[in-house]
Amino acid sequence: MFKKDLKIAVIGGGSSYTPELIEGFIKRYNELPVKDLYLVDIEEGKEKLEIVGGLAKRMVGKAGVGINIHLTLDRREAIKDADFVVTQFRVGGIDARIRDEKIPLKYDVIGQETTGPGGFAKAQRTIPVILDVCKDIEELAPNAWLINFTNPSGVITETVLKHTNVKAIGLCNVPIGMVYGVAEMLEVDPKRVYIDFAGLNHLVWGTHIYLDGEDITEKLIDSFAGGKSLSMKNVPQLPWDPDFIKSLGMYPCPYHRYYYLTDQMLEKQKEEAATVGTRGEVVKKLEQELFELYKDPNLNIKPPQLEKRGGAYYSDAACSLICSIYNDKKDIHVVNVRNNGTIADLPDDVVIETNAIIDRNGAHPINIGHVPAKIRGLMQAVKAYEELTIEAGVKGDYYTALQALTIHPLVPSAMIAKKILDDIIEQNRDYLPQYK
Amino acid sequence: MFKKDLKIAVIGGGSSYTPELIEGFIKRYNELPVKDLYLVDIEEGKEKLEIVGGLAKRMVGKAGVGINIHLTLDRREAIKDADFVVTQFRVGGIDARIRDEKIPLKYDVIGQETTGPGGFAKAQRTIPVILDVCKDIEELAPNAWLINFTNPSGVITETVLKHTNVKAIGLCNVPIGMVYGVAEMLEVDPKRVYIDFAGLNHLVWGTHIYLDGEDITEKLIDSFAGGKSLSMKNVPQLPWDPDFIKSLGMYPCPYHRYYYLTDQMLEKQKEEAATVGTRGEVVKKLEQELFELYKDPNLNIKPPQLEKRGGAYYSDAACSLICSIYNDKKDIHVVNVRNNGTIADLPDDVVIETNAIIDRNGAHPINIGHVPAKIRGLMQAVKAYEELTIEAGVKGDYYTALQALTIHPLVPSAMIAKKILDDIIEQNRDYLPQYK
Amino acid sequence: MFKKDLKIAVIGGGSSYTPELIEGFIKRYNELPVKDLYLVDIEEGKEKLEIVGGLAKRMVGKAGVGINIHLTLDRREAIKDADFVVTQFRVGGIDARIRDEKIPLKYDVIGQETTGPGGFAKAQRTIPVILDVCKDIEELAPNAWLINFTNPSGVITETVLKHTNVKAIGLCNVPIGMVYGVAEMLEVDPKRVYIDFAGLNHLVWGTHIYLDGEDITEKLIDSFAGGKSLSMKNVPQLPWDPDFIKSLGMYPCPYHRYYYLTDQMLEKQKEEAATVGTRGEVVKKLEQELFELYKDPNLNIKPPQLEKRGGAYYSDAACSLICSIYNDKKDIHVVNVRNNGTIADLPDDVVIETNAIIDRNGAHPINIGHVPAKIRGLMQAVKAYEELTIEAGVKGDYYTALQALTIHPLVPSAMIAKKILDDIIEQNRDYLPQYK
Amino acid sequence: MFKKDLKIAVIGGGSSYTPELIEGFIKRYNELPVKDLYLVDIEEGKEKLEIVGGLAKRMVGKAGVGINIHLTLDRREAIKDADFVVTQFRVGGIDARIRDEKIPLKYDVIGQETTGPGGFAKAQRTIPVILDVCKDIEELAPNAWLINFTNPSGVITETVLKHTNVKAIGLCNVPIGMVYGVAEMLEVDPKRVYIDFAGLNHLVWGTHIYLDGEDITEKLIDSFAGGKSLSMKNVPQLPWDPDFIKSLGMYPCPYHRYYYLTDQMLEKQKEEAATVGTRGEVVKKLEQELFELYKDPNLNIKPPQLEKRGGAYYSDAACSLICSIYNDKKDIHVVNVRNNGTIADLPDDVVIETNAIIDRNGAHPINIGHVPAKIRGLMQAVKAYEELTIEAGVKGDYYTALQALTIHPLVPSAMIAKKILDDIIEQNRDYLPQYK
Ligand SMILES: [Mn+2]
Ligand SMILES: [Mn+2]
Ligand SMILES: [Mn+2]
Ligand SMILES: [Mn+2]
Repeated sequence: MFKKDLKIAVIGGGSSYTPELIEGFIKRYNELPVKDLYLVDIEEGKEKLEIVGGLAKRMVGKAGVGINIHLTLDRREAIKDADFVVTQFRVGGIDARIRDEKIPLKYDVIGQETTGPGGFAKAQRTIPVILDVCKDIEELAPNAWLINFTNPSGVITETVLKHTNVKAIGLCNVPIGMVYGVAEMLEVDPKRVYIDFAGLNHLVWGTHIYLDGEDITEKLIDSFAGGKSLSMKNVPQLPWDPDFIKSLGMYPCPYHRYYYLTDQMLEKQKEEAATVGTRGEVVKKLEQELFELYKDPNLNIKPPQLEKRGGAYYSDAACSLICSIYNDKKDIHVVNVRNNGTIADLPDDVVIETNAIIDRNGAHPINIGHVPAKIRGLMQAVKAYEELTIEAGVKGDYYTALQALTIHPLVPSAMIAKKILDDIIEQNRDYLPQYK
Repeated sequence: MFKKDLKIAVIGGGSSYTPELIEGFIKRYNELPVKDLYLVDIEEGKEKLEIVGGLAKRMVGKAGVGINIHLTLDRREAIKDADFVVTQFRVGGIDARIRDEKIPLKYDVIGQETTGPGGFAKAQRTIPVILDVCKDIEELAPNAWLINFTNPSGVITETVLKHTNVKAIGLCNVPIGMVYGVAEMLEVDPKRVYIDFAGLNHLVWGTHIYLDGEDITEKLIDSFAGGKSLSMKNVPQLPWDPDFIKSLGMYPCPYHRYYYLTDQMLEKQKEEAATVGTRGEVVKKLEQELFELYKDPNLNIKPPQLEKRGGAYYSDAACSLICSIYNDKKDIHVVNVRNNGTIADLPDDVVIETNAIIDRNGAHPINIGHVPAKIRGLMQAVKAYEELTIEAGVKGDYYTALQALTIHPLVPSAMIAKKILDDIIEQNRDYLPQYK
Repeated sequence: MFKKDLKIAVIGGGSSYTPELIEGFIKRYNELPVKDLYLVDIEEGKEKLEIVGGLAKRMVGKAGVGINIHLTLDRREAIKDADFVVTQFRVGGIDARIRDEKIPLKYDVIGQETTGPGGFAKAQRTIPVILDVCKDIEELAPNAWLINFTNPSGVITETVLKHTNVKAIGLCNVPIGMVYGVAEMLEVDPKRVYIDFAGLNHLVWGTHIYLDGEDITEKLIDSFAGGKSLSMKNVPQLPWDPDFIKSLGMYPCPYHRYYYLTDQMLEKQKEEAATVGTRGEVVKKLEQELFELYKDPNLNIKPPQLEKRGGAYYSDAACSLICSIYNDKKDIHVVNVRNNGTIADLPDDVVIETNAIIDRNGAHPINIGHVPAKIRGLMQAVKAYEELTIEAGVKGDYYTALQALTIHPLVPSAMIAKKILDDIIEQNRDYLPQYK
Repeated sequence: MFKKDLKIAVIGGGSSYTPELIEGFIKRYNELPVKDLYLVDIEEGKEKLEIVGGLAKRMVGKAGVGINIHLTLDRREAIKDADFVVTQFRVGGIDARIRDEKIPLKYDVIGQETTGPGGFAKAQRTIPVILDVCKDIEELAPNAWLINFTNPSGVITETVLKHTNVKAIGLCNVPIGMVYGVAEMLEVDPKRVYIDFAGLNHLVWGTHIYLDGEDITEKLIDSFAGGKSLSMKNVPQLPWDPDFIKSLGMYPCPYHRYYYLTDQMLEKQKEEAATVGTRGEVVKKLEQELFELYKDPNLNIKPPQLEKRGGAYYSDAACSLICSIYNDKKDIHVVNVRNNGTIADLPDDVVIETNAIIDRNGAHPINIGHVPAKIRGLMQAVKAYEELTIEAGVKGDYYTALQALTIHPLVPSAMIAKKILDDIIEQNRDYLPQYK
C-alpha cells in the first residue's frame, strides 16, 4: 500500500455528514494522500448530493489539497478499484427513520433509530442494499476496505462479515464521544484519557477509565451520575441515578439509557413526539437548515451548526481509522469487528465493539476474556436479537423476524412484537424485497 | 449403599405437600427401604407439622410399610446421619410469598413466587437458611444427598453448589408436568413420551419431543398454541399465539408466559389480585382447607384435593430421583445440576435444568452443546440475574442486589428496580440478616 | 422404526470376524428382527466371502431364526434401503496391514495397525473408500445408521461426520474389553462394573471405575500395575509400573502402552518381527487357520478359536448398539461420536470416545467437561494428528500429511516423518488415488 | 507513576548478563529515570556480584547518568519500595545447569537448559525461590512489577501468576531475536518487520510475518529452510527441511528444533558433549572469560564478547518493556502473560507468549482465537506438561512430577521419565526443599 494516489468511495455521499468527512481528509492530507474521492448517491438524493458535493469542492479548494471530488449516481464507477469504501447511506431516508420511531411508540415501546424495533426495521431495509454494495466490492475492488458507518453499525458489519468476502470494519462515534466526555468532565486533553471498551455497538460499556494510565474509574463514578458530559445529541440526557451508577461501577454509553431507564425514556419520547416531534423529525428540520447553509457559495468550511446534528467526532473516527490502516500505525481504535473469542461470553462469528490495534491488515482486538455478570446477560440478550435480525434480514423469514423482535429486551411480549413486525413490514414494503 | 435402613430428613416437613412425598415413599417401599422419615419444621410451623405428621403416620399405617415417621423441631437430630435430606421449606411462609407477589405489582411488574422480583425476594430470604442447613449437613451427614425443592429451586441449588460442600440436586415438577402434558394431548402413556430439556429452572424449553423415539416436535407445534395441556396450577393458562409458537419451534414451559406474554400476564395478575387475590392468597385458602382435611382422623391417604395446590408429580419427581440414586439406576431424570459445559453458552459453575443420568454418584447431564440464538439470549440474561441474586443473597450486598433486579428482563428500569428492592428489604427485614 | 423386517448390510462381510456378528444377531433375534443380512465384499474377497457366508448360513440354520443371509459383490444392492450399514472392511487386506507395521519399524518407530504411522497409512487407504460408501448411503439409504468398525475407527467416523450427511457411530471393542477386564480381575459379573470413559479411540482412559455404583478406582490402581486382566490380543501385554499407574490414577487402555511405554514396546515389536513376525503376520496365519475351520460343512457355530483373533466382545458391542438404537433403549454404550463440547478441551467437530445414551435418535454423550492436565495434553496432541490425517486423506495433500506424521507423538522428527510418509505413499500407490 | 526517581531491583544481579541491562538503562535514561539500581545476589555469588557491579558502576560513570548502583546480599533491602523487580537468577548456578543437560542425555533424551527434563529440573529448583521472592514483593513492594527473565520463563511466570499476588510479566529474547533474524535475512531495519507470535515460551511460532505491514510469510518460507538467520546462540543451528517448512507455513522458533528435529538434535548434543562439552560447559568457560574481562578497571562499556553468550537483545527486551510500562506507551511487545482466552485452545489461567499492548497497567494481549491444528496439539501437550511441572514444583509431589515428565513430548516413556526424575531429585537434593 505504498501507492500514492488513494481512491475513496463514499456510498451515501449526499449525507449532511459529508463535510465532516471532507474536513477529516483535508486535515490528514499529508499522511493520507487521497487523490479521488467519489461521493455516490441514488437518484432520489441527487439534489442533496450536488449541494453537499459543491460544498466539498469549495472546502478542498480552500484547503489547497489535491483531492478530486467526484459526484456520481453510478455506484460501480465509484467502487471500481477503490482503496476504501465508506458506507453512510440510509435506505428510505429520514422519512423511513421517522416511521421507525413512530411504529413502536404506538405500542408503548421505545421508538429509536438504532435501538429496539426501530433499529430492527432499519436493519431489514439496509441488509439487502449492503449485500448489493458488497457484491460490487467483491467484483470491482476485492482488496478494498469497507468502513461501515451505516446504522445499525454493528448489525450491518456482522452481516457483511458473515455473508460476504469483503474486509469490513464497523464504526460509531459513541466511544470517541465517551472519551471526549470524560476529558471534558476532567477538563483535560482527550489524549490523556483512555477507556477499555467492551460490548456491542450502541451497547458498549467503558469498563475502566484511565487518565495518563492511572485507573480512575472509581473516582469518576459519581460524575457519571450527573451525566452532564455524555453529549450524544441523538439520546435524551436523562441523569443516571447515583446508586445505580455505583452498583454498575462502569461507564454506560448514552444508548444504555434505553435499557436502564426504559420507562423514563419512553415518557420522554412520547412527550417529545407530542411536542417538538421525534428525533427524526427534529433531525429532518436540522438537515433542511444544514442544506440551506451548504448551498451558500461562499461557505468553504464545515459549518459549526453541523455539530448539533449528532455526528461529533465522526470525521475523527473515520478518517483516523483509514489513516491508521493506510500507514500501518498499530495504534488503538474502538471498532466493530469479528469477536473471534475476544469476549469469551459471545460466539466467535459475531461482531463486537472493542478496542483494537489497527494496521494495514485490519483491526486486531485486544483480548477481553469473560465480562462481569452484571453486563454479560444484557449483552448476550441483545446479541442474540442481532443474530436473528441478520438472519431474518438476509432470508426475509417472517418467523425469524418475529423471534428477533420478541426476544429484544425492550419489547414486552410476543404479541406486541407481532403487531410491530406487521406494521414494519406494511410500512416498509418498498424497501423489503426479501419479504416477498 | 447396600444398607437397608434409610434415614430421610424432610426440612419443611409441615408443608401441605408432604402427603405427596409420603405417598411416593410408600409406593416405592419395595425398592427404597426407608426406615426413618424425619419431618422437621420450625416453632412457627409446629401446629401444621403435627397435623400433616398425623396424616403421614396414618398413611404409613394403612399401607402397612415399615416407615417410622418422626416429627421434630430439632433440625440437627433429623439431619444426623441422614442418607437424604429433602428441602421444601418456605422462609416466611405463605404471607411472605403474598408480599413477594404484591410488591412488584405496585410498580406494574410481574409479581410471582419464583419469577422476577418475587423470586428474588424469596431467594434472599432462603439463602441464609439453606446455607445454615448445609452447615449442619456438612457436619452431621457429610455423605447425604440434598434433594432441593425449595424455590427458586435452580438458584438455591446453585447457591449450595457454589458455597458449600454438600452434594445437591435441584428438582422441580415442571419438566415432568410437561411430559405428562404432551402425553395427555396425545392420549398416550407418559412413558412413551421423551423430551430433550434445556434451560434453567422455570425457564426450561422442551427443544425436541419424541413419541416412542420418533421426533414429533414439528407435528406437535400447533397443539401447543392452544396450550390446553400445560396444566401448571401456579401459572395462568393464557394461550400461545400460533405464529409465535411456530417461530419458536419448541415447547415453552408454563413460566415462559411471564417472559413471552408479559403484558397479558400482568393484566391477568392485576385483575386476579383485584378479585380472587394473588396466587399466594388463593393458595393460602387452599392450604387452610387442606389442613382442615388433613386433620380428619379417618383420612389415611393423600386427599385428591391436593392436586389443585399445584404440586402434581412432585412425589414422582422426588421419590423416583431418590430411588434412582439409591439403586444406581442410570435412568434419565430432569434435574438442576452444575452446568460444567453441558450448555456451552453458560458458565461452568452455574446450575442448569437438563436431562441427566442418575446413579449412586449423582446426576450426569447429557451433553447439549450450543443452543439456538432464539433461546440463548433470554437464558443467558436470566442466568446473569440469578448469579447476581446468589451473590447478593450470600453477601447481603445492596449494590449487587440492585444490579440483579435491574438486569432482570421483567424489570423495566433501574429506577423501578431500586424502588422494588427498597420495598423488599423493608418488608422482609426479619428474614434478611445478611442485609445489615 | 416399528418396521419388523430389518435389512442390514455388512461391508467387508468376508471378514473372519463375521461369525461374531452373526452370533450377536442370532442371540438378539427376539428383540432385533433382522430379516435380510447382506454380506458384501469385493472381487478379491470373493472366496472368503463364500466361506464365511456358508458358515453364516449354517449358523442361522442351526439357530432356527428367520435371518436371510445374502452374499454379494454388489455394494449398492446391499445398501439400498438398508436400516443399518456395518463397515468392517480393510482396504488392501492383511498384506497392507503388514506393510503398515513394517515401514515405521525400519525407522525405529512403533509399527502398529491403528496407532502411529501404521494407522495413518490405513486411514489414507480407507478414507476414499468410506467416502464412496457414504455416497451410496446418501443416495440409496439416507436414513440408515452407519455403524463403523473399520479402523482407525475414530478417524474414519470423524471423516464421515465431517464430510458426509450419513448418520454414523463409531465402535471399538476396547472399552467393553476394559469393563470385562475389571470384572475378571474382581471376579464379578461384568454388569456390576461401570467405567467413565474419556478420550479418543485407542486412546481412551477409564477415568473412574465403579462396582455396583461405588467408586473403586483407587482401590483398583495396584491391580492395573500387573496388567494381567487387560486382555487385548492385538497389544503386547507389558506390565505397567506401579508408580506410573499410581501417578496416573486412572485405567489406561491397552493401546496406551505405545505412548507410555514406547521404548519397551518398540523393543518388543522388533523382537517379534524378527521371530514370530509382526502382529499382522501372526494374524494372517490365524485367519488362514480360521478360514480352514470355517470351511468345515459341519461347523454351525462360532468357533472358539476366533477369540484369539482379537475381536472379543465385538458382537456384543455392535449388535447390542444396533439393538439399543432399534428399541430406543436409552441405555449407555461407549461409542465414537461428535464431541460437541462433551470434552471441553477439544473442538466441537471432532470425534471422541465416550459413554453415551443410545436411542432411536443416535448417541447422546454424557457430559465430561474439562479433563485433568495429565491426560489432556496427550489427547489433544493425538487429536490434532487425527484432524490433519483426515484433512490429508480427503484432499490427498502431501504437506498436510507431512505435518500429520511430524506431530504424531510417536514420530521423533520431521525427517523421519518424511521418510515414512514417502515409503507409505510408495508402497500403497494402488490404494491412494487422492495422492495423484 | 509520575515519580521521578525509580528504584529497580535486579535479583541475580551478579549475572554475566547484567552489563546488557545496564547498557539498556543508560540508553533510555532520558525517558526512564532510574535513580537506584540494586544488584542483589546470594553469598555464593558475592565475588561475581562485585566484579560485575564494578563494571556497572564504571559504565554508569562513563555515561554520566544519575543512576546509583547498589550491590547487596540483602534481597529485602533491594526489594523494599522497588518500582520494578527484575529476576534473572539461576538456582544452583551453571553447575546445576550442566547436570540438567547431562542427566537426560544418559537416557538418550534431549538435555537442554529449558526444554525437556532439563527445564523441568530447573523449574523445580527455581519455584521455591521465586515464591520466596514474591513473598518479599507482596510484603515490601506490593505495587512493583516483576519482570521475569529467570528460565523456564513461561513456567516461572505462570507459577507467580497462579500462586502469588505479584504483578508479573515474563520475558524472553527469542521473539525479538526472530524479528532481528528476519530483518537480517531481508537486510532491512528491524523496525519494518512485524511478526504475529503465538505459543509458549521457547515454543513460539511466528504465524505471520509482515514487512511494512505487508504479509510476506509465504515469500519467506524458503528462506527459513536455510535457517541461516535464526541466530540463537543456545541452540545448534541445524537447517530446516524445505518440505517441512513449507508444510508448516510458519516461522518456527529456534527451540522448535528440539521437537521437530529431535533425533538430529540429540545426535548433535551427544557429539558436542563428547567433544566441546554441553552448552552449559561451553557457557561456563565463556562466563569465566567474561568475568575476567569485566575485572578490567579500564573497561567501562558492555564488552562485545558478551554477545556470544546468547543474550542478544536482552537489554532491548527488558528495558524497553519497563520503559513502555513506565511511560504508558501502548506499544506492542512479545511477552509471557496470563492467557485469559487469548488463545482459545488453552486454559484461561496458563501463561502464553504473545504480542501484547504494554501500558502502565501491564500487558494486554492481542486476541488470537483458535490456532491451526498443526501447531495446536504440540502447544497443548507442552502446556499440559508445564501445568504439571508447576503443580509438582509447588507441592513437591513425586507422582505429579512423574506424570509431568512422562507426558513431555521429548520423553519416550514412563520408565525413562522415572529414571530421569529419580536422577534429578538425587542430584539436586540441596535445591529441592519441597521434595522432602
Ligand atoms: Mn453510532
Ligand atoms: Mn418448580
Ligand atoms: Mn478398536
Ligand atoms: Mn528465553
